[in-house]
Amino acid sequence: MDIGLIGLGKMGGNMRERMRRAGLTVVGYDRNPDVSDVDSLAALVEALPSPKVVWVMVPAGDPTRATVAELADLLGEGDVVVDGGNSRWTDDLANAELLAGKGIGYVDCGVSGGVWGLENGYALMYGGDADDIAKVQPAFDALKPEGEFGSVHAGKVGAGHFSKMVHNGIEYAIMQAYAEGWELLEKAELTDNVTEVFRSWREGTVIRSWLLDLMVNALDEDPGLSQVAGYAEDSGEGRWTVEAGIENAVATPAITAALYARFVSRQDDAPTMKAIAAMRNQFGGHAVRS
Amino acid sequence: MDIGLIGLGKMGGNMRERMRRAGLTVVGYDRNPDVSDVDSLAALVEALPSPKVVWVMVPAGDPTRATVAELADLLGEGDVVVDGGNSRWTDDLANAELLAGKGIGYVDCGVSGGVWGLENGYALMYGGDADDIAKVQPAFDALKPEGEFGSVHAGKVGAGHFSKMVHNGIEYAIMQAYAEGWELLEKAELTDNVTEVFRSWREGTVIRSWLLDLMVNALDEDPGLSQVAGYAEDSGEGRWTVEAGIENAVATPAITAALYARFVSRQDDAPTMKAIAAMRNQFGGHAVRS
Amino acid sequence: MDIGLIGLGKMGGNMRERMRRAGLTVVGYDRNPDVSDVDSLAALVEALPSPKVVWVMVPAGDPTRATVAELADLLGEGDVVVDGGNSRWTDDLANAELLAGKGIGYVDCGVSGGVWGLENGYALMYGGDADDIAKVQPAFDALKPEGEFGSVHAGKVGAGHFSKMVHNGIEYAIMQAYAEGWELLEKAELTDNVTEVFRSWREGTVIRSWLLDLMVNALDEDPGLSQVAGYAEDSGEGRWTVEAGIENAVATPAITAALYARFVSRQDDAPTMKAIAAMRNQFGGHAVRS
Amino acid sequence: MDIGLIGLGKMGGNMRERMRRAGLTVVGYDRNPDVSDVDSLAALVEALPSPKVVWVMVPAGDPTRATVAELADLLGEGDVVVDGGNSRWTDDLANAELLAGKGIGYVDCGVSGGVWGLENGYALMYGGDADDIAKVQPAFDALKPEGEFGSVHAGKVGAGHFSKMVHNGIEYAIMQAYAEGWELLEKAELTDNVTEVFRSWREGTVIRSWLLDLMVNALDEDPGLSQVAGYAEDSGEGRWTVEAGIENAVATPAITAALYARFVSRQDDAPTMKAIAAMRNQFGGHAVRS
Repeated sequence: MDIGLIGLGKMGGNMRERMRRAGLTVVGYDRNPDVSDVDSLAALVEALPSPKVVWVMVPAGDPTRATVAELADLLGEGDVVVDGGNSRWTDDLANAELLAGKGIGYVDCGVSGGVWGLENGYALMYGGDADDIAKVQPAFDALKPEGEFGSVHAGKVGAGHFSKMVHNGIEYAIMQAYAEGWELLEKAELTDNVTEVFRSWREGTVIRSWLLDLMVNALDEDPGLSQVAGYAEDSGEGRWTVEAGIENAVATPAITAALYARFVSRQDDAPTMKAIAAMRNQFGGHAVRS
Repeated sequence: MDIGLIGLGKMGGNMRERMRRAGLTVVGYDRNPDVSDVDSLAALVEALPSPKVVWVMVPAGDPTRATVAELADLLGEGDVVVDGGNSRWTDDLANAELLAGKGIGYVDCGVSGGVWGLENGYALMYGGDADDIAKVQPAFDALKPEGEFGSVHAGKVGAGHFSKMVHNGIEYAIMQAYAEGWELLEKAELTDNVTEVFRSWREGTVIRSWLLDLMVNALDEDPGLSQVAGYAEDSGEGRWTVEAGIENAVATPAITAALYARFVSRQDDAPTMKAIAAMRNQFGGHAVRS
Repeated sequence: MDIGLIGLGKMGGNMRERMRRAGLTVVGYDRNPDVSDVDSLAALVEALPSPKVVWVMVPAGDPTRATVAELADLLGEGDVVVDGGNSRWTDDLANAELLAGKGIGYVDCGVSGGVWGLENGYALMYGGDADDIAKVQPAFDALKPEGEFGSVHAGKVGAGHFSKMVHNGIEYAIMQAYAEGWELLEKAELTDNVTEVFRSWREGTVIRSWLLDLMVNALDEDPGLSQVAGYAEDSGEGRWTVEAGIENAVATPAITAALYARFVSRQDDAPTMKAIAAMRNQFGGHAVRS
Repeated sequence: MDIGLIGLGKMGGNMRERMRRAGLTVVGYDRNPDVSDVDSLAALVEALPSPKVVWVMVPAGDPTRATVAELADLLGEGDVVVDGGNSRWTDDLANAELLAGKGIGYVDCGVSGGVWGLENGYALMYGGDADDIAKVQPAFDALKPEGEFGSVHAGKVGAGHFSKMVHNGIEYAIMQAYAEGWELLEKAELTDNVTEVFRSWREGTVIRSWLLDLMVNALDEDPGLSQVAGYAEDSGEGRWTVEAGIENAVATPAITAALYARFVSRQDDAPTMKAIAAMRNQFGGHAVRS
C-alpha cells in the first residue's frame, strides 16, 4: 500500500518508520525540509496512486483544518483523508462535509501510544464509512500493536476522536489517582521507601497497569521526583471530555478533579484563594499573607 | 449573673466586654497578666458565687482539655463548665464524663461572630442538659445578637460544637463559591469592573449574604486583592465536617472541594502534580519543568 | 417612558406589573392572548414612540433568537432591543451583530429575583453601549430593588448575561453547601431539631444569607422536606459557568460539584455505578444487586 | 514451614490452598467446622512448632481485635502474629503493643488479589521488624505472585496496612475513571459498540490495565451491564485513605470523588438534593417532584 503522511514530528516521524517496517510505501511531507520526503503537499499527492490515501498528523485546530482544506483542492473522487491528530470530534463533522462535497472520503482516527508507539504499536480508534476505512486498513494494521487488541472501528465519522477523547479523559483521572496516592505515602512517612511500595504493586494487585509501570520508571530515574516541577499542561481532550459530560448530563467528578488539579498547578497565586484569604480576614481577623 | 471567663484573646476579650455591657459580672483569667482580672484559675473560681459558671475560651485540643481537667479539681457539685472554643464535638463527650464524675455540669457552645461579635452579637449553638443550660442562660442572652435568631439549644452534650462544625463546613463552601466566581469574572475579562458586579449583587439577588458584603468590603479596601496572597489556612472544623460526612456516608463534595483548595493553596509545588508531570513525560515525552 | 415587553410568563408578567407601578407605559405581548396587551409583535412595535425600546423576556435559545430576528425586521435606526432572558452570553454577540446591521442597539440584561421580584425588585446586570443603556435606564430603575445596590452596567454586550451566569453558578454552589450541611445534621442525629439549628443561623453567623432564610421557610412549610423528591433540574447557567471556567482554565470545583450532584439526582440507576459494581464483582466476587 | 491460619473464608480458604501447593504445612481454623482443620484456636496453636507463626485472616475491626487478644494469651516469647485482614493501620499499633507485652512479634500485611489470588498470587505489603518478618518469609514467598514484583517490606508496624489502604484508595479512583468514561460513551451514542471500544484499549493505549481487562470481562458476560444495579458498597479503605489525606493535608479529589459516588449510589432519594429542590422552589417557583 502507498500512503501520504503529512506531519513528521514526534508522532508522525515514528509512524512513518513503523509503516515502512511493515512494508508500506510512505510519502511523508513536513514543513521542515530535513525530514520531508517531498517539498509540497501537491508533490505528496502527485506521488500517490489512486485511490490516494493521505494521513494528516498535524496539530489539532487551525493547522489540521487548513491542511484538510488544501487537500480538498488536491484530491478527488474516491480518495480518502485520515485525520490522525488530536482533533476535537466536532471538527470531524465539518471536515467530512467539506471533503464529501468533492467525493473525497474522510476517516478520523484517535492514536494513542506516544513515544512507545514505534516499538509497541499505536492503539487506534477510527470512525467513518466502511468503504473509506477499507482503503486505509493496511495502514491501520501496520500501526496497531501486534496482539489481538489495539484497534477498533468505533462508529461513524467522529466516533474515533470521540473515543480517543474519552480515553484521554480516563487517562487524566488514572494518573491523578496514582499521583494522589504517591503524595499521601510520601507525606505520611509511614513507609520506608515509597518507590518500592509502588514497584511491588506491579504484580498481583488490582491497580497494576502500564501507567503504574511508567510511574515506577519515573521514580527510578529521579528518586523523589526532585527534578520535576509540580506543573502540568493539559492538551484539550481532558477539557473536551468534561464538556461532553456536561452536554450529556453525565457527571465526571474524577476526570474533572484531574483536569482542575492541572489548572491549579499552573497558578502561582490562585485568585480563588486570594478571595478566600480576604474573606477570612474580614470576618475573623485572620492574618493574610502578602 | 456572675461568670468566670478563661481566655481573653481576640474572641474572649470582646466577649467579656459584651457581657459586661449587658450587666453581667465577669471575672476573666488569661495567662497574659495585662488583660487578666485575676492571677490564677483558683482565684477565678474563688471569686464566683455558687453555683459557679465558668466559660472556657481557649484553643481547642490540649489547651482546652487541660483547662477542663484543672476545673474538675477546682469546681464542685452543681457548678457548670462551658466550652465555648472550637473544640471537636468528640472532645465534649470526654470532658462531660470527666466533670460528671464530680457532679459538675458541662455545656458545649459553638460561637460564631469573629471580630464583628462585640457589636453585632455572637451566634451561639449549645448542647447539654436543660438544667445546666439554665444556669448559663443570662450569658447566652448577653452574647447573642439582638434579634429573634442567633442562638439555639441544639441538643445534648456535643450537639453545640457539632452544629458549629457543620456551620463552618458550610461557610467553607460558600466562600469557595464566591471565590470561584470572582476568579472567573476576573479572568474572563468580559466585565469592566468585577467589584461593581459583586457590589450590585448585594440586593435583589439570590446570592446576597453577609459573606458577599464582606467580599465587597475586601475588594474596596484592596482593589483586585493585590495585597493578599492566595494562601488559606484551615482551622479544624472544615476537616471534621468532611470526616463526619464520611463517617455517616454523607457526600459533601462542595465542602470537600473548599477544604482541598485550601490544602493546595499552601503548597509551593504539589507532589501530586510532580507525579502527573513525571508520568506525562514517560509516555508522551512531554517536557517537564524543573 | 414607553416600553414593549415580549413574554408575559412567571417573570415577564410580574415585571410588567412592577414597571407599571413605577409609572411606565408598558405594552406587553405574549402568545397567550389572555395576558397579552396586543395581538402581534408588529402591533407592539406600532404602539411604541421612537426611539422604541423592546424588552424580550422569552426562553433562552431558539425562542429568543427567533424573536430578535423578527424584531430586526420590525425596528429601525436608533431603537433598542433588550434581552432579559437567561440567554448564554455567546448568543448576545450574534444578536447584537444582527441588529447592528440595521442600526438597532442591543442590550443584554441578566435578571435575578424570581417570584420575589415583583415586591422586592429585580437585580439587574446589563451589558451594552452607554447610549443604548441610557434609553432603557428608566426601565432598569423601575425594576431594580429600592436600595443603593441591585443593578450594574457590567460592560459591553455579553457582560450582563456573563455576570448573571456567574451569579447563578455561585448560587448552585451555595445551595449545595447548605444542602450538604442539612443532610449531615439530619443523618448524624446529634441535634434535636435541625430546623431550629438552621433558624438560629439567620443572625450573627458567618453564613447568614437570603438562601438560608429560604431554606428555613421551606423547612417550616414541610418539616423534614418529606414532600420533596431529591431531584433537581439545572437550567443552563450552571453548565455554562463550568464551561466558561474550563475555557479560561479556572477551576470551579465547588460549582462543578453542585452541577454534578444535580445530574446524578436525576438518575435512577447511574451507569457509572453499574460499572463500579461490575468491576468489584470481577476482582473481589463482591455481590452485585440486580 | 508450619503456619496457623485463622479465617478460611473466600480469601483465607484460597490462601491456605496456595500455601499448601507451595509445600507449607498449614493448620487452618474457622468457626465453620466444615472447613476448619482443628476445633479451636488453642488446638491450632498447640499444633504448631516454635517459633509459632499465626496468620489472622478475619474481618477487620472487632473480630480481628478479639482474635489478637486471644492469641496474646495462647502464644509466647518469639512467636509471631500476622494480621492479613483489611484492618485500619491505626489498629496495628494497638495490636503490636498488646503482643509486645508478652514478647510476641506482630506483622501487619495488606493482601490484594481477590478471587484471582489462588492462581495468580497475592500482592503483599507488610510492616514490622525484620526479625519477625524473617519468620513469616516462607509464607510470603508462597503467597506472592511468581514474578519479581508483588511483595514489599513497606516499613515498621502499620506500614503494610497503610500501603494497602492507599492501594485501595487509588483503586477506587481508577475504577471511577473507567466507569465515568463508560457512562459517557454509552450516553453520547456516537460509537457503535462501547464494549468493542473498551476491548480495543487493552493494548497499545496509555490506559491499559488489569482493571480494564476486568471491565471488558464484565461487559462480555453482561452486555450493557443490564443485570447490575448502580449500587456500590465501600469497605473502609477508601474512607480511611481520604481521612489520612485530610490528616496530612493532602488533597485527594479523585479518590474522594470515587468514594462519594458510592455513598450517593446507595441513596434512593438524597437528602442533599431534597434541600436543593426545596430552595429552588422557594426562590423560583420551580416545581418539585414529590
